[in-house]
Amino acid sequence: MTESTNFSSRFTRMETFIQQLQDEICQALEKKDSRKFQEDCWKRKEGGGGRTRVLENGSFLEKGGVNISSVHGPMSDELAKQLGTKASFFGACGISLVLHPRSPKIPTVHMNLRYFETLSGNCWYGGGIDLTPYFPYPEDFRHFHQTLQQVCERCIPGSYEEYKKNCDEYFCLPHRQEMRGIGGIFFDHLNGSEEKYFNLVHEMGEEFLNAYLPLVDRRKNEEWNDEDVEFQHYRRGRYVEFNLIYDRGTLFGIKSNGRIESIFMSLPPKVDFRYNWEPRKNSPYHEMNGFYQPQNWC
Amino acid sequence: MTESTNFSSRFTRMETFIQQLQDEICQALEKKDSRKFQEDCWKRKEGGGGRTRVLENGSFLEKGGVNISSVHGPMSDELAKQLGTKASFFGACGISLVLHPRSPKIPTVHMNLRYFETLSGNCWYGGGIDLTPYFPYPEDFRHFHQTLQQVCERCIPGSYEEYKKNCDEYFCLPHRQEMRGIGGIFFDHLNGSEEKYFNLVHEMGEEFLNAYLPLVDRRKNEEWNDEDVEFQHYRRGRYVEFNLIYDRGTLFGIKSNGRIESIFMSLPPKVDFRYNWEPRKNSPYHEMNGFYQPQNWC
Repeated sequence: MTESTNFSSRFTRMETFIQQLQDEICQALEKKDSRKFQEDCWKRKEGGGGRTRVLENGSFLEKGGVNISSVHGPMSDELAKQLGTKASFFGACGISLVLHPRSPKIPTVHMNLRYFETLSGNCWYGGGIDLTPYFPYPEDFRHFHQTLQQVCERCIPGSYEEYKKNCDEYFCLPHRQEMRGIGGIFFDHLNGSEEKYFNLVHEMGEEFLNAYLPLVDRRKNEEWNDEDVEFQHYRRGRYVEFNLIYDRGTLFGIKSNGRIESIFMSLPPKVDFRYNWEPRKNSPYHEMNGFYQPQNWC
Repeated sequence: MTESTNFSSRFTRMETFIQQLQDEICQALEKKDSRKFQEDCWKRKEGGGGRTRVLENGSFLEKGGVNISSVHGPMSDELAKQLGTKASFFGACGISLVLHPRSPKIPTVHMNLRYFETLSGNCWYGGGIDLTPYFPYPEDFRHFHQTLQQVCERCIPGSYEEYKKNCDEYFCLPHRQEMRGIGGIFFDHLNGSEEKYFNLVHEMGEEFLNAYLPLVDRRKNEEWNDEDVEFQHYRRGRYVEFNLIYDRGTLFGIKSNGRIESIFMSLPPKVDFRYNWEPRKNSPYHEMNGFYQPQNWC
């Protein structure tokens, strides 16, 4: 995707991987849905571009995006500060995925896998996967976390605990002292010259469908009612709060002059912002609210 | 409201003013609605507190908040940086109002009037009023701006042009190069020891109902359809983007450890975040989209 030949072969390898992964995931999701992804390819003025795929108003996905991008060019001082590196010519490529199912019984899921390289010699991998459920099915949460744990431990023994903790801390709304969901794993600034880290990112991407699709299959035939939707739309408000106030990916996208509609595909459709609202005591939603705090799922 | 006696008499005067204004505005709004405001008084651990009034699911207001607060205490370095002042013991009091009517024919409106004082000797007024309509009634927009212009020119001749320009620049989504609404006026850091600035803030507050209620009365009997609501919910998404990414009041509230539910009362109920959506060509909404750019309304 990039026209620049100044980056290492790792850059091209990552580009190839995210292209294939996007195809694989979109094909698998389309099999579950009544609709197809629409594709928009875009170019960035300063260098690079992306391929955005969004599916809206499907039978399974109310809104879902599986985007890849590869951008490069001079780095602004502001961006360098945010990334904690020196300003330099940089390249960044990655895949970002956010799925908002229609059914409140099926969780929202997010995955991001990315690679950065600067011509001044820094290179690193980052990424994460996290789950945002709206109904208390602890067995589903355990399956999700256990799948992630297995990948982590296979690639880098002992890493799940650290990456899980990162995730609990990152996908957190400090002003509310709660998480946006039930977490997953999160890692950043993993040394790009160590093969084990590409391996981790690669395996994580390949296991995504195994972590998430079983939850879809288990819950796709469950009915839901207005109260389920009420809680879902309320919690989606927290998702918006996190993404617009704290999410580094969103802020990076805006600051690096990315394509706005591709960045904001992560925002959920149909959200309710209610004043001081709480779910009914002793309801499943009240129980679910108790899960938005760090806890052991494995 | 404040227990501290270390601030000037201007602080107390402003506190008294915002209390009375909150009463006056809430009473006038309740006359238009089927419901009453609910009141929540809160205290801030570090000093001060507030009185939040919110009305939800009314016949006129789908969600509206008229909040006052008066907080004081030590200022964090982060907050001092944001305010462009030295860290010091500070006091801040103000009124913040956001009204989201149910009808897409009646605009959302926002007003904020505030006074800051630090024990190191700085004091200033700030504030603004702006309108976010969802249907193209240019005569309504003119009435709103002309009312603000008259107050500005009465208090500080020549000021409307400057404050209107501030507002066009402030209530702007730079990543989209559009405004969140059709603007109004905005001012900040007006020298607190000059009486004309208290006068401006005072008159602005007193004229609020004259600027806004005529728009409500003109449009309250107009019918609306699903397409009107579709556009309203879409534009409310822009309101959320602005408030969570850029709004200084929201960021100040979070950083100064304000009451979260009072800060976020500004967020609209029922919002749609759609991918790359645009209103139908030649529709009123398409015309309305053309108004979200700075223009002369007087």
